[in-house]
Amino acid sequence: KKTFRVVVLPGDGIGPEVTAEAVRVLEIISAASQDIDIKLETHQFGGSAIDAVGEPLPAATLKACQEADAILMGSIGGPKWGVNSKVRPEQGLLSLRKALGLYANIRPANFASKSLLANSPLKPTVAEGVDIIVVRELIGGVYFGARKELGTGPDEDAAWDTMVYSIPEVQRITRVAAQIALQANPPLAIHSIDKANVLASSRLWRKVVTETLEKEYPQLKLDHHLVDSASMLIVANPRKLNGVILTENLFGDILSDESSVIPGSLGLLPSASLAGAPSVADALDPAFKATSGLYEPIHGSAPDIAGQGIANPIGTILSAAMLLRYSLGLEKYAQAIENAVRKALDDKAAGGHELRTADLGGSVKTKEMGDKIVEIL
Amino acid sequence: KKTFRVVVLPGDGIGPEVTAEAVRVLEIISAASQDIDIKLETHQFGGSAIDAVGEPLPAATLKACQEADAILMGSIGGPKWGVNSKVRPEQGLLSLRKALGLYANIRPANFASKSLLANSPLKPTVAEGVDIIVVRELIGGVYFGARKELGTGPDEDAAWDTMVYSIPEVQRITRVAAQIALQANPPLAIHSIDKANVLASSRLWRKVVTETLEKEYPQLKLDHHLVDSASMLIVANPRKLNGVILTENLFGDILSDESSVIPGSLGLLPSASLAGAPSVADALDPAFKATSGLYEPIHGSAPDIAGQGIANPIGTILSAAMLLRYSLGLEKYAQAIENAVRKALDDKAAGGHELRTADLGGSVKTKEMGDKIVEIL
Ligand SMILES: CC(C)[C@H](C(=O)O)[C@@H](O)C(=O)O
Ligand SMILES: CC(C)[C@H](C(=O)O)[C@@H](O)C(=O)O
Repeated sequence: KKTFRVVVLPGDGIGPEVTAEAVRVLEIISAASQDIDIKLETHQFGGSAIDAVGEPLPAATLKACQEADAILMGSIGGPKWGVNSKVRPEQGLLSLRKALGLYANIRPANFASKSLLANSPLKPTVAEGVDIIVVRELIGGVYFGARKELGTGPDEDAAWDTMVYSIPEVQRITRVAAQIALQANPPLAIHSIDKANVLASSRLWRKVVTETLEKEYPQLKLDHHLVDSASMLIVANPRKLNGVILTENLFGDILSDESSVIPGSLGLLPSASLAGAPSVADALDPAFKATSGLYEPIHGSAPDIAGQGIANPIGTILSAAMLLRYSLGLEKYAQAIENAVRKALDDKAAGGHELRTADLGGSVKTKEMGDKIVEIL
Repeated sequence: KKTFRVVVLPGDGIGPEVTAEAVRVLEIISAASQDIDIKLETHQFGGSAIDAVGEPLPAATLKACQEADAILMGSIGGPKWGVNSKVRPEQGLLSLRKALGLYANIRPANFASKSLLANSPLKPTVAEGVDIIVVRELIGGVYFGARKELGTGPDEDAAWDTMVYSIPEVQRITRVAAQIALQANPPLAIHSIDKANVLASSRLWRKVVTETLEKEYPQLKLDHHLVDSASMLIVANPRKLNGVILTENLFGDILSDESSVIPGSLGLLPSASLAGAPSVADALDPAFKATSGLYEPIHGSAPDIAGQGIANPIGTILSAAMLLRYSLGLEKYAQAIENAVRKALDDKAAGGHELRTADLGGSVKTKEMGDKIVEIL
């Protein structure tokens, strides 16, 4: 039996409620399987860690994360630790990403079930068939470049941040995008997004993406969009960006959030943040496996509904599926979860259970949704 | 009779076709009015200027723009002068903005006529009543900070850009947003957008916006959104951002384009880029008047349909209305144009002419639309 260590970081707000359901799903898979054993351990992280020990990413948590095969996170933050606090939950997340080298953020925006089309803010004709995977560079760019705060140094009354990229940083994220494109048959198209008509870092981005794909993955289709024009396309005609959106940290932050509202509820969507450097050799092995990975739903800690047991656990459960796929290499279990989620959501007419949590206009509770998915599995 | 000099920069692609109609509208107003005389002169700009004299912003054009009361532009750019060309049309636009000090970009996203709701990619229930004015800082931030290209200097294999803001830069754009908010009755809410949980320049932004409004415009409502969350809201629930969106250059580039697809066609929307510094004293005078202004439709040069006479001239005609409002101080003529445009677009059932150009799914030509608006005026 192969043993995997998975660290669980429930975090703040609804985090503990939604991770509880995803943990049950992982436990059931571990129990049912002949050949794997998933060992789960819970650690403090985010605002609750600030309250408990004064910092969002305690050393013990970081150590556990470094030693684990993968990390499942809930959500962090809340008004209690607002923008003006000295120590903030988000700093813990940014530090964790950097410490583990999680440079590849993967965020699908698609319909877990066709029956959710009615929930989209877009017209059904516009939203139907949208199937986008955003691959966002996560530990470079303006997030981690040099910066100067107001009131310090020379130029007291100014503040600045540096948006910086190097060739190897862009190469490795391009390769991750390529590996993900190759996992589909036929391979997905790659849409690289930048602001090359203004920014030097974007001109580097465009050049390196183009050369890396031409040289190492000539079979993949590539096009380029300016970020302003991509932000329009995501609303006006998102199917045009079906496939992989490949972009830098800040643009990825904005565009992945923008595209994630298409499926109608943030509660539905998972994410993965991966380390591990696919080299040219990996091009021969589409089953790219991450050396470290953090998996979390894309929604926030939703303090307004925390503690009520009504949050949608699907984003976290689908994050657990991504964990099985990318970190543990267990594609068949990942698909089993995705199918179970689809069945829980599908209309009765399509043979599903038509469960709807509050975010989807229903009254099904967090635990009921978890129960049903576990039952289907 | 008061005389105004207006420079017209038709530019590239459909630019000459759409400016021709807006020029007719300005001419009719000038001819009909007892007290004003608008003198129009045309100059070379953009790709066509590159072809003619080797640079996108010839000295004669810049001089004319500097001496004019206002500038009406069509659109620039095209595949002929692509991202890899040495001299590019967009450089001319960026230089013109900087040279004239056009720091305040104003972009409304609303429905020129209720009958256009059906054209929105958003569900009617989501799009109805959206009425947003984006106020974007236009000559600061990462557009004009120091940068380093790939292959130069130390760190040969890296490239960077600097996102930089100073206190006075943020103060003046905040005041423009406030003046615009005060032009409505009751005053509009101000939604300031930044990424203060990551960026130093955004922390400065948030602090200065808050302090300026608290001190100088305490009657205005202000809230703050992170740029990722704002990009979601614009799709999921845009009415929540009704009022003024106040943001920095790059975020404004992305968010103004994103919100501009709500009304269903880019062909409908105008923009203004203003210089002139409203001081604290102006707070007493809501009729803020720009010292220099560039007005242009938000759409591009659309090379695919150029020369066919089918482009929608409304974005440019409404830009002429903004020109009358902000640069010439002729509010009543601005409103007359806006009413004429509404009438041309309104359903027959609502007493309108229901004209639809190709972008709106119809077959009305550029000139026919111009004819009708001139006729109504
Ligand atoms: C919390 C914040 C720093 C973070 C980011 O901007 O990366 C979040 O928006 C995300 O996308 O995970
Ligand atoms: C052409 C380009 C440089 C410009 C910008 O990014 O400002 C355009 O997108 C705009 O918004 O006017």
